[in-house]
Amino acid sequence: MSKGRLEAFSDGVIAVIITIMVLELKVPHGADLAALDPLVPVFLTYVLSFVFLGIYWNNHHHLLHATGRVTGGVLWANLHLLFWLSLTPFVTGWMGENHFDSLPTALYGVVMLCAAIAYYILQTTIIRADGPHSTLAKAVGHDMKGKLSPVLYAAAIPLAFVHELLADALFVTVALIWLIPDRRIERRINST
Amino acid sequence: MSKGRLEAFSDGVIAVIITIMVLELKVPHGADLAALDPLVPVFLTYVLSFVFLGIYWNNHHHLLHATGRVTGGVLWANLHLLFWLSLTPFVTGWMGENHFDSLPTALYGVVMLCAAIAYYILQTTIIRADGPHSTLAKAVGHDMKGKLSPVLYAAAIPLAFVHELLADALFVTVALIWLIPDRRIERRINST
Amino acid sequence: MSKGRLEAFSDGVIAVIITIMVLELKVPHGADLAALDPLVPVFLTYVLSFVFLGIYWNNHHHLLHATGRVTGGVLWANLHLLFWLSLTPFVTGWMGENHFDSLPTALYGVVMLCAAIAYYILQTTIIRADGPHSTLAKAVGHDMKGKLSPVLYAAAIPLAFVHELLADALFVTVALIWLIPDRRIERRINST
Amino acid sequence: MSKGRLEAFSDGVIAVIITIMVLELKVPHGADLAALDPLVPVFLTYVLSFVFLGIYWNNHHHLLHATGRVTGGVLWANLHLLFWLSLTPFVTGWMGENHFDSLPTALYGVVMLCAAIAYYILQTTIIRADGPHSTLAKAVGHDMKGKLSPVLYAAAIPLAFVHELLADALFVTVALIWLIPDRRIERRINST
Repeated sequence: MSKGRLEAFSDGVIAVIITIMVLELKVPHGADLAALDPLVPVFLTYVLSFVFLGIYWNNHHHLLHATGRVTGGVLWANLHLLFWLSLTPFVTGWMGENHFDSLPTALYGVVMLCAAIAYYILQTTIIRADGPHSTLAKAVGHDMKGKLSPVLYAAAIPLAFVHELLADALFVTVALIWLIPDRRIERRINST
Repeated sequence: MSKGRLEAFSDGVIAVIITIMVLELKVPHGADLAALDPLVPVFLTYVLSFVFLGIYWNNHHHLLHATGRVTGGVLWANLHLLFWLSLTPFVTGWMGENHFDSLPTALYGVVMLCAAIAYYILQTTIIRADGPHSTLAKAVGHDMKGKLSPVLYAAAIPLAFVHELLADALFVTVALIWLIPDRRIERRINST
Repeated sequence: MSKGRLEAFSDGVIAVIITIMVLELKVPHGADLAALDPLVPVFLTYVLSFVFLGIYWNNHHHLLHATGRVTGGVLWANLHLLFWLSLTPFVTGWMGENHFDSLPTALYGVVMLCAAIAYYILQTTIIRADGPHSTLAKAVGHDMKGKLSPVLYAAAIPLAFVHELLADALFVTVALIWLIPDRRIERRINST
Repeated sequence: MSKGRLEAFSDGVIAVIITIMVLELKVPHGADLAALDPLVPVFLTYVLSFVFLGIYWNNHHHLLHATGRVTGGVLWANLHLLFWLSLTPFVTGWMGENHFDSLPTALYGVVMLCAAIAYYILQTTIIRADGPHSTLAKAVGHDMKGKLSPVLYAAAIPLAFVHELLADALFVTVALIWLIPDRRIERRINST
């Protein structure tokens, strides 16, 4: 029951975040193709952020499914994750409006990095509460994806100042790692 | 349980989409009837989009009610549907503000077409997971409405450039097909 | 189960409506009391609308608690109610920004009247599905409050053009009828 | 069941409040660090309000977990709490935009004080419904934190006019009292 409400609240917050992001796609005044032009980068960042939030919701769903006990620490670790996710609309809007300029792109990476760390803290907090022989501890295993993502985000931040496209390419890479079905990617990562 | 959370998240997203659309109805400064005048087309598109989102929620409700297994593919097919639905407030606002001009009307049709295709993909993904003898596979049957809707949306896109009213008439037709109780309409479609 | 999802979706929509209304309370630029001055009527309409939406959520809660079968008609009657409630932020903002001017006040009454009628339709649709001997049919009984509210709203619309305060007084009266505990008010209404 | 829906609605409202607050972080036009400068106080108030709403959600979660009966009075006491919480985005935005100026800081304290009182009323209403020997009555006990918080908020209001930082320090103190794990803080408070 306690877990049910934690899931419901997280679902609510992620549902609102994913949806209010679309408000950054400001309705243009003209009715021709030229009016849509400045919206193209905003739309692309919207797609990227939608996919990231979808991945987080997906993982969060699996994480809590395998969770046994919900302690006070788990509640706060969860709120900490939601805090960083709640900044997504802001950094998405800033990056989109400035056509993937260096600083907004780097800040996007910072928020993504913090969210990834917050997810890792949440996972660790749950495993500590459930014990090392719990379902979750076994399911997570080596967690290559979970460890690779923050490394790629951290690399994207300085690279945004070399060329924005390098950072963007890393963001898309992280998204693809999570989107492509598990087995293949895991084999690929393990064989590298 | 897994299904319960998928439903809860989808409900949350659709609830936010359907409600933030009303923010496009900007509060006018004057207090007379003339102040409401430019809002009439915005209000009409709001009603249309509200009905469409209501239909999607309704169908989504029935679809998941008949669903047995929720696989990773189903989660992503569902997020893909929510993505297109999340663009509804933007195209609704653009079409409303430009008094049903050609290009915004065509783009509205594009988003509706993509949402209809996404719904079809979700349905197919669930049937593939549940098997050809599942409740859902039988319930869907020939699915005349589901097949007719994207055809009408696809027809509306070029027709918007001939005359916007032709496209609008098709949008209203699709809405009516779903709103009028099932048996009558199905007989009509089958007899055509 | 079907009922559970209907409740969850309605809760989501009403929760978003009640919360985005606060966005009409635009943050002023100054930091003194004078800056808050123009917000007073906006705040008062916010309180009024918050109470109305609270009453609707409360009644909706009791209504669905007593509901047996959820038919397709019930789903649409419910969406119809949510449609009128979703217009509350718009009319609240318009009435607040124009300091309870005649036309905005009358339009507020129109939306409230339509919501009250939509609630009545929903109640009737559920009773028709559940039968005349159902829990709900007995619980509703004579439903004096439910019948009195639309009458008072209908009276408020023309009275807004005589003097806005007359309409406002009727709105507050309806709110009080529902807020004051049931037994007392019912006795009072029955004795009139 | 009745309780489930009360929780779901409260979760929805708090989830929306906590998320739309981020809309006060307006996306700046420039792409350099100077563009982020005016956002620093807005961001700090955002963090503070996020923590407060997180604390309220957390406590609300525990409160309803221990609740037995949901009466009409509990429904309204809960809506009363949600009303004050719904004003958080407004006072957060006003305090942030005016760099923690006296009046906005004091108003922030007023809303926090009213929310704390509303929480106390909700708790008392539930205990009255459940009886003095209920789980909740025992769990609440002396409730040092619950009694100390409104006192600190009340002190912050006049202190905001002496120096804003005094009030801000009290807000942070209240947040820390709730954030630091229970036993330690309770010992500390009891020993004072």
